Amino acid sequence: MPSLTVYKSDLDYSYAPGIFPSVECLKHRPDKVRRLLLHSSAAGREGADRLRALAEEHGIRVEEADRALARISGKENCYAAAVFGKFEDDPDPSKPHVVLHNPGDSGNVGTILRTALGLGIEDVALIRPCVDLFDPKTVRATMGSVFQLRVKVYDRFEEYRETFPDRKLYPFMLDASVPLQEAVKEKPPVWTLVFGNEGRGLPKEFAAMGQAVRIESNDRVDSLNLAIAAGIGIYGFMIQNP
Amino acid sequence: MPSLTVYKSDLDYSYAPGIFPSVECLKHRPDKVRRLLLHSSAAGREGADRLRALAEEHGIRVEEADRALARISGKENCYAAAVFGKFEDDPDPSKPHVVLHNPGDSGNVGTILRTALGLGIEDVALIRPCVDLFDPKTVRATMGSVFQLRVKVYDRFEEYRETFPDRKLYPFMLDASVPLQEAVKEKPPVWTLVFGNEGRGLPKEFAAMGQAVRIESNDRVDSLNLAIAAGIGIYGFMIQNP
Repeated sequence: MPSLTVYKSDLDYSYAPGIFPSVECLKHRPDKVRRLLLHSSAAGREGADRLRALAEEHGIRVEEADRALARISGKENCYAAAVFGKFEDDPDPSKPHVVLHNPGDSGNVGTILRTALGLGIEDVALIRPCVDLFDPKTVRATMGSVFQLRVKVYDRFEEYRETFPDRKLYPFMLDASVPLQEAVKEKPPVWTLVFGNEGRGLPKEFAAMGQAVRIESNDRVDSLNLAIAAGIGIYGFMIQNP
Repeated sequence: MPSLTVYKSDLDYSYAPGIFPSVECLKHRPDKVRRLLLHSSAAGREGADRLRALAEEHGIRVEEADRALARISGKENCYAAAVFGKFEDDPDPSKPHVVLHNPGDSGNVGTILRTALGLGIEDVALIRPCVDLFDPKTVRATMGSVFQLRVKVYDRFEEYRETFPDRKLYPFMLDASVPLQEAVKEKPPVWTLVFGNEGRGLPKEFAAMGQAVRIESNDRVDSLNLAIAAGIGIYGFMIQNP
């Protein structure tokens, strides 16, 4: 493997920056880990022993790499980074899905992945153009939950639709929509929640593809934050009316 | 008024950075606005005409101030900033409240204020130590919603409690808690949702002060993000079971 470089989206590997995201990476995707970078002062920090033990258990090479960590993370206080090969998995057709259409903010995508996993969704699709799922900023914002999910990135929404033609879609948008608390009352066994871009929302043709859903907010704010809307939507479908 | 400086928490004024937050500031708190800074290339941008018209309507001085804007915002592409005097308002005792106990992240506080307003909550209390409500980063993250809310910062939770002794509290925590979807079924006319710090949550004595509530998440993630938890909690109390 060549010497490590600052992340670029065309690399076939990326970094899980931080002790906690690295632990999640080694725990759930040890087969993808190429090496583990540790800071010389990582010892004694919460999780550092666990991380070393996981590396040993899976035969993963550990390198003390203070300068590489600073360069990769752009921070002086990054104590670990798992170097992992990128991966993707097909969503499970028997499970609920979340689809993010053209999301533009890595923090939002990371937070939504973390929320989805915490509320019981294991399958997520992203539709391009969108933020880079494996950008270390995104990986960090997922808090490592990306390593426990099946995530796939599609070039176009039609590709997702053709792969899963029979699922009921719930696009979150205002046109022709019903309130969330009504929508969750009559849902089929498998379904897909679809959320649009932070600024533009979903194109209006999505209203005809399924049952549009809205979160009843007032007009005193422009809109809810995307991650908040997704969190409320997933809560509605997974917890409020499971 | 002396020449403008980079924001510090001990100033008695702050900045609403960006065209949209500035519009909200001039629309809802014109009496607090000391002047409006505009970038020489702001003209023609979305909202810029509206902003100028609002300044004229309220007799607010407009200054072209490219360098001040760059210095204040730390960015080259900040096109406007309203300079406003800090304010606080007592929460309305007849309305629902949200209390944030020791929040540490300005993005979270901003997002929660925006979500609260959008879902119909107008009264928010912050308990110190906490992020600076009027830090321009926080103001920006509220998307200007801070100018439509009654927000007050208390030194200690007991102060809030003594001011509003008869309200039912719903602290969000695991100890002795009931699931959110149960808690919302039997709520009194006025109530307060309480959310703890990002890392530590709420001190355990809060469990005895009201009806502890939890959002039923699994143990595959460490916890939900604070802003997501607050968004789901507010949705539950305001929309799911209004």
